[in-house]
Amino acid sequence: MGNTFGHLFRITTFGESHGGGVGVVIDGCPPMLAISEAEIQVELDRRRPGQSRITTPRKEADTCEIVSGVFQGQTLGTPITILVRNKNTRPQDYSEMAQVYRPSHADATYDAKYGVRNWQGGGRSSARETIGRVAAGAIAKKILAQIAGVEIIGYVKRIKDLEAEIDPEQVTLEAVESNILRCPNAEAAEQMIEIIDQARKDANSLGGVVECVARQVPIGLGSPVFDKLEADLAKGVMSLPASKGFEIGSGFAGTRLTGIEHNDEFYTDETGRIRTVTNRSGGIQGGISNGENIVLRAAFKPTATIGKSQKTVNQAGEETTLAAKGRHDPCVLPRAVPMVEAMVALVLCDHLLRNEAQCRTLPRSE
Amino acid sequence: MGNTFGHLFRITTFGESHGGGVGVVIDGCPPMLAISEAEIQVELDRRRPGQSRITTPRKEADTCEIVSGVFQGQTLGTPITILVRNKNTRPQDYSEMAQVYRPSHADATYDAKYGVRNWQGGGRSSARETIGRVAAGAIAKKILAQIAGVEIIGYVKRIKDLEAEIDPEQVTLEAVESNILRCPNAEAAEQMIEIIDQARKDANSLGGVVECVARQVPIGLGSPVFDKLEADLAKGVMSLPASKGFEIGSGFAGTRLTGIEHNDEFYTDETGRIRTVTNRSGGIQGGISNGENIVLRAAFKPTATIGKSQKTVNQAGEETTLAAKGRHDPCVLPRAVPMVEAMVALVLCDHLLRNEAQCRTLPRSE
Amino acid sequence: MGNTFGHLFRITTFGESHGGGVGVVIDGCPPMLAISEAEIQVELDRRRPGQSRITTPRKEADTCEIVSGVFQGQTLGTPITILVRNKNTRPQDYSEMAQVYRPSHADATYDAKYGVRNWQGGGRSSARETIGRVAAGAIAKKILAQIAGVEIIGYVKRIKDLEAEIDPEQVTLEAVESNILRCPNAEAAEQMIEIIDQARKDANSLGGVVECVARQVPIGLGSPVFDKLEADLAKGVMSLPASKGFEIGSGFAGTRLTGIEHNDEFYTDETGRIRTVTNRSGGIQGGISNGENIVLRAAFKPTATIGKSQKTVNQAGEETTLAAKGRHDPCVLPRAVPMVEAMVALVLCDHLLRNEAQCRTLPRSE
Amino acid sequence: MGNTFGHLFRITTFGESHGGGVGVVIDGCPPMLAISEAEIQVELDRRRPGQSRITTPRKEADTCEIVSGVFQGQTLGTPITILVRNKNTRPQDYSEMAQVYRPSHADATYDAKYGVRNWQGGGRSSARETIGRVAAGAIAKKILAQIAGVEIIGYVKRIKDLEAEIDPEQVTLEAVESNILRCPNAEAAEQMIEIIDQARKDANSLGGVVECVARQVPIGLGSPVFDKLEADLAKGVMSLPASKGFEIGSGFAGTRLTGIEHNDEFYTDETGRIRTVTNRSGGIQGGISNGENIVLRAAFKPTATIGKSQKTVNQAGEETTLAAKGRHDPCVLPRAVPMVEAMVALVLCDHLLRNEAQCRTLPRSE
Repeated sequence: MGNTFGHLFRITTFGESHGGGVGVVIDGCPPMLAISEAEIQVELDRRRPGQSRITTPRKEADTCEIVSGVFQGQTLGTPITILVRNKNTRPQDYSEMAQVYRPSHADATYDAKYGVRNWQGGGRSSARETIGRVAAGAIAKKILAQIAGVEIIGYVKRIKDLEAEIDPEQVTLEAVESNILRCPNAEAAEQMIEIIDQARKDANSLGGVVECVARQVPIGLGSPVFDKLEADLAKGVMSLPASKGFEIGSGFAGTRLTGIEHNDEFYTDETGRIRTVTNRSGGIQGGISNGENIVLRAAFKPTATIGKSQKTVNQAGEETTLAAKGRHDPCVLPRAVPMVEAMVALVLCDHLLRNEAQCRTLPRSE
Repeated sequence: MGNTFGHLFRITTFGESHGGGVGVVIDGCPPMLAISEAEIQVELDRRRPGQSRITTPRKEADTCEIVSGVFQGQTLGTPITILVRNKNTRPQDYSEMAQVYRPSHADATYDAKYGVRNWQGGGRSSARETIGRVAAGAIAKKILAQIAGVEIIGYVKRIKDLEAEIDPEQVTLEAVESNILRCPNAEAAEQMIEIIDQARKDANSLGGVVECVARQVPIGLGSPVFDKLEADLAKGVMSLPASKGFEIGSGFAGTRLTGIEHNDEFYTDETGRIRTVTNRSGGIQGGISNGENIVLRAAFKPTATIGKSQKTVNQAGEETTLAAKGRHDPCVLPRAVPMVEAMVALVLCDHLLRNEAQCRTLPRSE
Repeated sequence: MGNTFGHLFRITTFGESHGGGVGVVIDGCPPMLAISEAEIQVELDRRRPGQSRITTPRKEADTCEIVSGVFQGQTLGTPITILVRNKNTRPQDYSEMAQVYRPSHADATYDAKYGVRNWQGGGRSSARETIGRVAAGAIAKKILAQIAGVEIIGYVKRIKDLEAEIDPEQVTLEAVESNILRCPNAEAAEQMIEIIDQARKDANSLGGVVECVARQVPIGLGSPVFDKLEADLAKGVMSLPASKGFEIGSGFAGTRLTGIEHNDEFYTDETGRIRTVTNRSGGIQGGISNGENIVLRAAFKPTATIGKSQKTVNQAGEETTLAAKGRHDPCVLPRAVPMVEAMVALVLCDHLLRNEAQCRTLPRSE
Repeated sequence: MGNTFGHLFRITTFGESHGGGVGVVIDGCPPMLAISEAEIQVELDRRRPGQSRITTPRKEADTCEIVSGVFQGQTLGTPITILVRNKNTRPQDYSEMAQVYRPSHADATYDAKYGVRNWQGGGRSSARETIGRVAAGAIAKKILAQIAGVEIIGYVKRIKDLEAEIDPEQVTLEAVESNILRCPNAEAAEQMIEIIDQARKDANSLGGVVECVARQVPIGLGSPVFDKLEADLAKGVMSLPASKGFEIGSGFAGTRLTGIEHNDEFYTDETGRIRTVTNRSGGIQGGISNGENIVLRAAFKPTATIGKSQKTVNQAGEETTLAAKGRHDPCVLPRAVPMVEAMVALVLCDHLLRNEAQCRTLPRSE
């Protein structure tokens, strides 16, 4: 059951990087939402390989087909299946990996757990699996936008040691998409691209941090205790390939402050709405959204599959070396941006429906 | 449904800090496990308030009762209910909080979501809720120990800017429990206690980082895609009160390395087992445990409820100030240690049963 | 996880017939619902033993305590725990059953599955477990009544071969409760009571059929495919102790008609609402409620535990005989009525919240 | 979430009768199971339309494609997706149904719930959805057979008033498949086929009862309380289109016996295994399989879509008549047989894995 996410807006992804295709089934989507393959394709194009010189040179169009759940341009309330066929596969690039385990990759653990593995291009552990998430996220984003005007914007905040100044209150999708790195600070982006270019030439790879802001999130999303909004966001983001850390609001840095420095004091704004002066909480208090911007960060490690030669072992346990062939990203972060956005959208959409059910069904006397 | 955690070893916690009591129902526990109230009490005593001068001065014995699921000292395979009655409650300490929202606390968001709130001592948002988790965690730990000799040890790694050197390979429970802070580095502990003492005197509070290691974890736990082991650990830990961040293995720091520096090279040890030279993966690759130590860190913010005066608003939205009465922890970290351990135990135990079901039921020909 | 029921209005029952107590945790209940122990007690009193000469002579007050989730008479939106302590237990009545398996009872299968069993009074397999269901059902009924005026009325339709004429459109709770059998047809009730009295004297037992009607159910509850409303009702009812069959609407008898005879023709009533002339569908079409009365029936076998001597085996597999001691119901049906009502209420309440979430969150243009 | 079934062996079906296709995603399947499209096709061919003159004359090959989860003929442990494209669709046959509601069909309730409906051939409410169930059932059957030699055989027991004598202990798949009705009693089958032929000529339809036996089921499957084995079987079967009733073992008829007549006495057979003399329990006691044959029955109403003219209303609520065009089954029972088998296999396979996890992971001392 590890391939399903969400409680009411619930997605199940399927597919290996090589084989018939990859995709997603979305169950619980509200009916009568206008949706088209073209709208979903926009988000898929943001995550597809080959989009620039700093991503993998694999060229995959990743054209999506809505197989079910939509009729005459509208969702039916029944499961929406979105399928992307695998094309441009080169299994021969991976033949060595049938035997030899890539360090810090899923090869060895899959073999140990399942006793079998589709070794062509990573199989189920391939980032190609995230196609289903991004497709579903496109629908979740549209629901959130229609109901509450929610805007979700992710961007590259740091590559290796290069950190960009970006104001989550002001950042726009246009600024994010204005360069191939998806860092809205143009100057920082240029430097980041430079070191990624260098890593690529060195057959090496780089990691970094994606930050994501969700604006106009309704108050009241999230549930105390286990399904705190930040807990579900953490799970969503930490389930992405290559993620190693998650922070909400002030995160790890916030632990260096004292209580009086860290607390977000309340005030009432001109419209009578209760607000916080600062937002170290990152838009969530007690596991529940408070209407301020949700701000989170995710750490992505340097890509595990690299061209440089490394010590490793093969299936038989014999020591050997591996310099990976195949076409790999020198840095996953530009393509991780739409993946993080998708996970945030899926969590928020699910909790929006959950809140509606529990807290807005019974008529309140006051 | 936000109060249930786990898929096969599944717990549901209940209760508010004031009211009839708090507790947990555990469903799916294997039968014929020897368990006693005394064993559970050991863990509860590690999290209870009043255990030292650097925790809240509330004195609560938190004595547990096994209401169901155990017969003649053995688990029955039916739901295990553990109940701790609320005693030593002083609702009058909280009467001001019925009206006035504590900054960075759950008061305002609970009111906004539910329209009602048990304002006595935090109600459901109180850390008292974690009694149920710790009690269930005691059972999960025992199962993990019996089946595979798993050891789970948490400890305070950092308070504010004071970070302790601790070797997760070597740390012992005895060292952790040797001081009231639960920092196994005695020298660092002393300094940390000093600054917490000072914060307490200042009616202020401090945060920090808990690190946790799980040793002897079987290979193969975790599931690709959404229920990656690190994703479920992240959710578990981020669902604890006051947590703001989560890291596995190299975490955020790892993103500053290049791929060749970060990858864990493989070798075969003298017993023929495939191992990694380094452990930047933190014991998990591709979402699945690889048999190395699982190492994770959680950021806990400074306690929100402090005695210092802060600007805030009341339920009517009128601006006011609040200097919290009541008996609060100047630093949650010493008591967070058993909570983190409990969440780690719950996740590992659940995935152990899941792995058994999927990967060890069908006889394998080889 | 077999002890949890429902997706949004979700209950977990716990407890054995002997031990600390039995009860329920309800997660997902809407906040701000007025509820009291007295209201819940009313329903519990309808299911408790010792209420009349045709039920078990065990006298148990089954007084309930709300342990959590309610504050100042209102639900908090947090888990509601309801606990009933076990009293008047006589484990010595069951000492023989520690060794000897009662025919058609759970003794042997529990031992085979779990390797251990609380043999005092049936343990977890005791009908005492249904206390938690009935308590939760009381809350579900109140929600359904408040939101939509739903009325759920169960009654004894048949005992052995004696079947009563009862009109589900007209039947009232008052008529049901007017006799100890809960058969609203007074004449039939009298005859039924007579044969139960005889069975009791013979140390034998009887079975029969409970019918249940739910009126004023909103249109649109239920979900196509697996969670069809009738499928979830079937599961709920078939999970009650001693149930052997389930029917919706025309049920098994309906299979003797042809399509033209069986179909419910549509018409539009004076208010403009689409209605059906007949109701062989039992208020559900395509898995979704159509606004007509939901009518279902459940078969309950004769109580397995009887005083007559029967051939059986003991734990060691040695053949022996058993004439059960203890205090048992000669016929479970009078007490099964509130249990069936509770399961129907739980299913409807869950689907009401689910429908709200999926189909009433997104604003519809028309 | 209504489109997912099972807890560990978990399937999600998708698709409408008209549109891109129908299918299933299976999550949680054990790895290293040999499986081929050809094996799945065998079961699909048993449910496909056009297989004989007493089923719908629609000719659909329903050729399946395994899109994911299988590699070199073996399951990978990742989600298995099986897709069947929609072909030979004739939406024009259904154009009238875009406006006019078929009596006792899902048309009106779908419109009321979702505000939108794929009116071409029933959309999601079409029996075509069961392709996914039958495909997944084929895999579940194979797992059950490999692990425990389980055999699941369904057959037509009754059409209208014609009931066949069939011994569930002895019935074979060969006998079932020896005629187009799937009634292993050849003489009865002939008469049944005759009345179905007549109904077809009359533009009418017939219902009846399918019985299903599962042999060699391991002891210990099922879980007390809500997930009793019979409760999950009831849900599975009652989620099939056109089902109106469910019975386990003695069912409704058993309620006419007294306790002493109904109870299954125990004995110990020559191999030392505890057995029951009779099997009125239908192979399940206390919600848990006891190793005897599981025997259940399902009532299927006469097909709702018929050629005869009936009174109905259109979307606007105006009264009209409808004589359905399109190609419909005069009796669903022959095709319902593999559907019932599939649901039984899915429930048993899920509970087999669940039992393994809870009751066979912890080493038992004795």
